Amino acid sequence: MTKIVKGFMVEQEENYQLNVINHMRQGIRNFAKQEIIARKNDGTLFQYTYKDSYERMQRLANALESIGVKVGERVGVIAWNHHQHFEIYYGLPGMGAVMVSLNLNLIPEELSYVINHSGAKFIIVDEDLISVAEAVAPLCKAIEGYIIITDNNLSDLNTNLKPIYSYEELVNKSSPEYEWPYLDENSSYAACYTTGTTGRPKGVYYSHREVYIHTLTFTAKFLISVNDIVFQMVPMFHVLGWSIPQASAYAGSKLIFSGKWSLSDLKELTNLMDKEKVTISAAVPTVLMAMHEIVRKMDKKPDFTGARFLCGGSEPPITLMRGFWDETGGEIVHTYGSTEGLAIVTLNYFKPWLKIELSEEDLWELKKKQGTINSGIDIKIIDEMDNELPFDGKSSGEVLIRSPWITRCYYNSDRTKDSFTSEGFFRTGDAGCIDSEGYLKITDRIKDVIKSGGEWISSIDMENTLMSHKDVLEAAVVGVPHPKWEERPLALVVLREVSKSISEGELKQFLTKNFAKWQIPNKIMFVDSIPRTSVGKLNKKVIRMQFKDIYNN
Amino acid sequence: MTKIVKGFMVEQEENYQLNVINHMRQGIRNFAKQEIIARKNDGTLFQYTYKDSYERMQRLANALESIGVKVGERVGVIAWNHHQHFEIYYGLPGMGAVMVSLNLNLIPEELSYVINHSGAKFIIVDEDLISVAEAVAPLCKAIEGYIIITDNNLSDLNTNLKPIYSYEELVNKSSPEYEWPYLDENSSYAACYTTGTTGRPKGVYYSHREVYIHTLTFTAKFLISVNDIVFQMVPMFHVLGWSIPQASAYAGSKLIFSGKWSLSDLKELTNLMDKEKVTISAAVPTVLMAMHEIVRKMDKKPDFTGARFLCGGSEPPITLMRGFWDETGGEIVHTYGSTEGLAIVTLNYFKPWLKIELSEEDLWELKKKQGTINSGIDIKIIDEMDNELPFDGKSSGEVLIRSPWITRCYYNSDRTKDSFTSEGFFRTGDAGCIDSEGYLKITDRIKDVIKSGGEWISSIDMENTLMSHKDVLEAAVVGVPHPKWEERPLALVVLREVSKSISEGELKQFLTKNFAKWQIPNKIMFVDSIPRTSVGKLNKKVIRMQFKDIYNN
Repeated sequence: MTKIVKGFMVEQEENYQLNVINHMRQGIRNFAKQEIIARKNDGTLFQYTYKDSYERMQRLANALESIGVKVGERVGVIAWNHHQHFEIYYGLPGMGAVMVSLNLNLIPEELSYVINHSGAKFIIVDEDLISVAEAVAPLCKAIEGYIIITDNNLSDLNTNLKPIYSYEELVNKSSPEYEWPYLDENSSYAACYTTGTTGRPKGVYYSHREVYIHTLTFTAKFLISVNDIVFQMVPMFHVLGWSIPQASAYAGSKLIFSGKWSLSDLKELTNLMDKEKVTISAAVPTVLMAMHEIVRKMDKKPDFTGARFLCGGSEPPITLMRGFWDETGGEIVHTYGSTEGLAIVTLNYFKPWLKIELSEEDLWELKKKQGTINSGIDIKIIDEMDNELPFDGKSSGEVLIRSPWITRCYYNSDRTKDSFTSEGFFRTGDAGCIDSEGYLKITDRIKDVIKSGGEWISSIDMENTLMSHKDVLEAAVVGVPHPKWEERPLALVVLREVSKSISEGELKQFLTKNFAKWQIPNKIMFVDSIPRTSVGKLNKKVIRMQFKDIYNN
Repeated sequence: MTKIVKGFMVEQEENYQLNVINHMRQGIRNFAKQEIIARKNDGTLFQYTYKDSYERMQRLANALESIGVKVGERVGVIAWNHHQHFEIYYGLPGMGAVMVSLNLNLIPEELSYVINHSGAKFIIVDEDLISVAEAVAPLCKAIEGYIIITDNNLSDLNTNLKPIYSYEELVNKSSPEYEWPYLDENSSYAACYTTGTTGRPKGVYYSHREVYIHTLTFTAKFLISVNDIVFQMVPMFHVLGWSIPQASAYAGSKLIFSGKWSLSDLKELTNLMDKEKVTISAAVPTVLMAMHEIVRKMDKKPDFTGARFLCGGSEPPITLMRGFWDETGGEIVHTYGSTEGLAIVTLNYFKPWLKIELSEEDLWELKKKQGTINSGIDIKIIDEMDNELPFDGKSSGEVLIRSPWITRCYYNSDRTKDSFTSEGFFRTGDAGCIDSEGYLKITDRIKDVIKSGGEWISSIDMENTLMSHKDVLEAAVVGVPHPKWEERPLALVVLREVSKSISEGELKQFLTKNFAKWQIPNKIMFVDSIPRTSVGKLNKKVIRMQFKDIYNN
């Protein structure tokens, strides 16, 4: 970073340190009666209040101390979205330990790497995820205990983990009085490990200060209030549930936790959201697309009028956003972030003058962009020579970001050097451009850009065009080696169940409405599924590997 | 404060420092086209955009450097609410100097004390406030220059101030390119001096960090957005205009500056607000009451449906809030703050469950309370023995507050010791209680509490009851010495023009609906006006002095 300049310094004492627990501790004055609901595995609903929850956070802090967790120590968490996970979000970092969010989809080799790298000595795990913990236990010798979240007695559990504790027993027998330590705001609050398609997972450690300021920013920019009813669908092990639990708790919103769910539960979740009159939720496009498919088939559609569904991870197709709006009245709001960026970097909302200047069609087109960059964030677009590019809506390059809450290093990793600039910017690895109104558009992952005859082709734009076709459910476009053009695009397409008759030629023809002839893929292949990473992203590395010789034969 | 505990420290580099200028610098990416309007002295409207404004902030920073203003130096500002004042809010602290807000209502002796105490070397002053500067100039020997905000040529001004500069000339001839210094976040952003009824003004210096975090908090809790149209009526020399300019700029709201105004301009301002479809404004009760009087007499009422008027300084009477709502559709939102508290400590909004639990009458009663305390703030109510009192809606004592943005000292003052506790709390000097839903009610200034026969009587409650009478325009209640009861209440009342016939006995009878017989003032005196301080508060010290012998004769 640039050298810090000291101005007129009056207050000599140390600053009031930003501790995330204060959002609950102070918020409880106002929101004691607010409700928290959690969907249980049997489909029934657990219900209590912020006051109950905060009391259990205090009990949890005492409980963790009682089994030997100390300030500064790391504790791994393998859990679905439920009220206990919410309690852990505050009780665990509140007592000074670090919540290490563990992605239950990682293979044991990766998961054990994360646990060992973090130095965690305790793991909190859901009863029905015990097998995940058991798979890594032999590889994690430093673990001193497992805290099982279960309604059953420990003696009824069939597990070889040891020693084991019952979360509920520990909490219930601990005192509800707890004096939170006054933490240095730079103390770590939580860690999320980011798993790319290359290399080992990298540890991003969020400080209390970062989470505190980001929570305020997100709440202010997304206008979350005590009147909101928030459905926590994003897995809470993904980038702090995209910060939605923290912003909701700060705002005092009613919180509903989805419980354990997979795509097959989406109909039930959709009905629950409708019944509870949810006003805010969030998911990746895949989930919202599946939900849209369900809604399309419903006789009585859910009424999501006025509700906002954040959509991040990749670009939501316009057919999804329009269709969802038409069928439910719910608005899909595009957002962009990353593990390093602490969730919410952009939000796509309309500024009042754009509602006047732009046609309805143009406004829908605008909604596809990632959105405006929140104040607090510095952003640069740079070319391959590190030159800054203008915000003209065309000049595309790598997106660099920094802010008071964006991480500045990977913990104990030689990858820090390449991923962060000397000025403190995080190199996102995303290619994108920014228009004159400040809307960011991500065109590709830098490494997924297709370089054909010296020109760039955006794989994401092409995927989204393909997915805007009514017969296409999923699409992936990658660049594969070509003897003449260096790379040429290859598209993989999964068709909708009901429309298996469309031809490759018809889809190529469809692409010509948005792409020049030289950009059209040499081949479009129909497949049953497309490889994805553990966090649900297209695994282009695997696709490129699989088809690396397709244009060389 | 308590000792700081270090947790797990991962990020070793210095934090990204919170600099207030970033809200404009980064916001301009999104809000370049947003409008800013300023009402000029001749009633015409000046209009430009955020982009224009930000460019002039950069020019201003260069201009200040060009005349010798350095990082860390203090610059006094004597100005009405206009776009130049807004530019100063960012350009001046942005370049590292400190904006010392000067209250143009102070007497020269006080104002010169403030200027000398701050060490300011430059004063920025409106042309039509030159006389204020001239009155203090002989008392402020350290001043090196005066920057006059005027549309005229300097040579046309008739003043003995020297040397003088023209704000507009300086700005116009300076470069619009400026690299903001990267300031230590604990550098002072601005200073406001608080003038009580006793002693010298005390200097509160707000750091960039404090203003940054408070701006986020206020925006999040009051839900200010790019769709808002904000009318800046609170003088910008009063506690940073109650932070409304900063929150609006952060949110990207349309901003309208009131220009120079007094109560006689209120009809024009009301019409302007109606015409511009204002959604947010703020004022003290005296102003809103006067506006309400004007609206009552209008044939065609302004339509403030959906608009919110923050009301702070003292409790808005229920007749005002209901009347204003009935006549305009505008909501008056009670807020509480202070110079030391950096404006917004509480906001009175209804929580969803209270809208169900309480009757309409009870909700109106609730609106009289100061509101819920924003998260981020620690609050305590203590008795005379420093014991903490419960939040039971009854136990009244002194209100103590602290937060990441509440000041922790007076600059260079021996008053710091008495006004701040060793734990970092500010002793507000207000007596109040908090109910189980977290709503704060201020019952009195500690020093204004009336102690009669060992019992407390709230002067504010009695004033508000008196003002709820349809014939009463203003009321003040003080305790004056009494030979038997230590103190007894005395009420001063200003009647409405049209209703000069009511008797003292009738008003005493009216009070019995809310007060026990022993609490009723021995005397209610009808007066033409009530003494007020320079910031418009009841000057009870003067009243007590004036009538100190009234019950002793």
